[in-house]
Amino acid sequence: MMHDHDDDRTPVTVIGLGLMGQALAGAFLRDGHPTTVWNRTAAKAEQLVAEGAKLAGSVGAAVAASPLVVVCVSDYQAVHELLDPLGEELGGRVLVNLTSGTSQGARQTAEWAARRGGTYLDGAIMAAPAAVGADAVILYSGPRPAFDLHEPVLRSLGTGTTYLGDDHGLSSLYDVAVLSLMWNILNGFLQGAALLGAAGVDAAAFAPIAKTGIGTVADWVPGYAQQIDDGAYPALDSTINTHLAAMEHLVHESESLGVNAELPKFIKALADRAMADGHGGNGYAAMIEQFRKPAGTRS
Amino acid sequence: MMHDHDDDRTPVTVIGLGLMGQALAGAFLRDGHPTTVWNRTAAKAEQLVAEGAKLAGSVGAAVAASPLVVVCVSDYQAVHELLDPLGEELGGRVLVNLTSGTSQGARQTAEWAARRGGTYLDGAIMAAPAAVGADAVILYSGPRPAFDLHEPVLRSLGTGTTYLGDDHGLSSLYDVAVLSLMWNILNGFLQGAALLGAAGVDAAAFAPIAKTGIGTVADWVPGYAQQIDDGAYPALDSTINTHLAAMEHLVHESESLGVNAELPKFIKALADRAMADGHGGNGYAAMIEQFRKPAGTRS
Repeated sequence: MMHDHDDDRTPVTVIGLGLMGQALAGAFLRDGHPTTVWNRTAAKAEQLVAEGAKLAGSVGAAVAASPLVVVCVSDYQAVHELLDPLGEELGGRVLVNLTSGTSQGARQTAEWAARRGGTYLDGAIMAAPAAVGADAVILYSGPRPAFDLHEPVLRSLGTGTTYLGDDHGLSSLYDVAVLSLMWNILNGFLQGAALLGAAGVDAAAFAPIAKTGIGTVADWVPGYAQQIDDGAYPALDSTINTHLAAMEHLVHESESLGVNAELPKFIKALADRAMADGHGGNGYAAMIEQFRKPAGTRS
Repeated sequence: MMHDHDDDRTPVTVIGLGLMGQALAGAFLRDGHPTTVWNRTAAKAEQLVAEGAKLAGSVGAAVAASPLVVVCVSDYQAVHELLDPLGEELGGRVLVNLTSGTSQGARQTAEWAARRGGTYLDGAIMAAPAAVGADAVILYSGPRPAFDLHEPVLRSLGTGTTYLGDDHGLSSLYDVAVLSLMWNILNGFLQGAALLGAAGVDAAAFAPIAKTGIGTVADWVPGYAQQIDDGAYPALDSTINTHLAAMEHLVHESESLGVNAELPKFIKALADRAMADGHGGNGYAAMIEQFRKPAGTRS
């Protein structure tokens, strides 16, 4: 009986060999999967072929070569330009789309794949190509049986392989949610660096203290999540009123030093609205209600 | 010779016994410092007196009792209401003000203390009261000799005792810079939680993935700081143009799900300006130039 060994060698196809696609195919190859590749510009496959990949002569042949087909191209339009012309090749296969897009695009592509007799999983790679095959976090959404069937193979791409749920749109939504968090962190660091820079402090001097501050907030996240899900926001240390006093200092310092005060003012305006809604004595998690409202809506 | 031991037992005065002031005095007491305390409402000193603190009969007597005087009250106005009526008690002493305020307030209070013959250090406590006496980060700014003289005593308040520089305003500036970073992280998490919540995902499900994302960005901070100080922003992985494509998805998803899209639009607008300034091919650190400009200023 060689089931485990057989499972470990599921043939895989990778379509799209940009930096990320090359990393995906390389990770499959290193784990011993027979790997078929295709790219519009065949030259990008040379290194992978040298490592044992098989270069398909067409998109159709690439899809037909494996029960599991991974596509990672520039956008959903490119996905459809490549796959729409196919005939019956997708029938009975699992298509995993790791191309960045919207939840709506993911759901539409799932419907498209179903019409072709294929099963669709959407995915989002929360990592740089260098982390693929190592500790990359890759999020998947779509039918659970298809994920479970191929999870051992997909796990070749990263130890952070995570299944989110049946709704095909979830991986795109988590993707933008995490990216939004990342942009906010970077903007917060840049705002602080600009402020301190105007007072003659190097960003390198701010960095270690900023990093400690980021780690502190990371530890608060589970507690905030609990309050959000409970819909109750008791102040664990500071109230929104206390935060507001410090936000006024932030706006004042930004304006005094002549740096961009838009983000400080936006932060304060949100907290002002939370106070106007009666949350001044609550903890910061009460601000979730401001983020749930469409822009300009007041309770 | 008992110099080290003598140094370790420098008498200290703590003025203001809110939750934070009580934590400060308690930490000094636990490290064996003769500790004098004062508070407008004397009842708040009871527990500390039971632990060995001496309750002064007046602010003047409290200041006169120790070479090192720590004040932690609600705001700078309260500092001045307490200390302005003093006569010569401050002469030859080091006043450490851990009250939250602005850099301008810190510099003015330093001048005020100098006129009274005192030496002034401003400080900012980057921690909750529970961390005082443990791993609290407390930032100090003002004359280096005064900090060096009392550093062993101040270290009783937290292992994160950090000296920033001679400019008295630095601790307030770092304070708002770190708070700004924290608010931005929390807002980023809340935006993501609101977005995913609208799609039926609990905040508790988002929290572990958000925490991983926060940790990833924390590791980027030193590299970003280096690029900012160098004034060169080569893209280490994604360019601003690539970020912009994903920011469009964030705005689209927020609007589609009917949550607040103000912050996503603000994030995108800043990146649009960076692209208009010719930074589309650079990494995200190039955004520092947008934060350095006063609001509405275009290059």
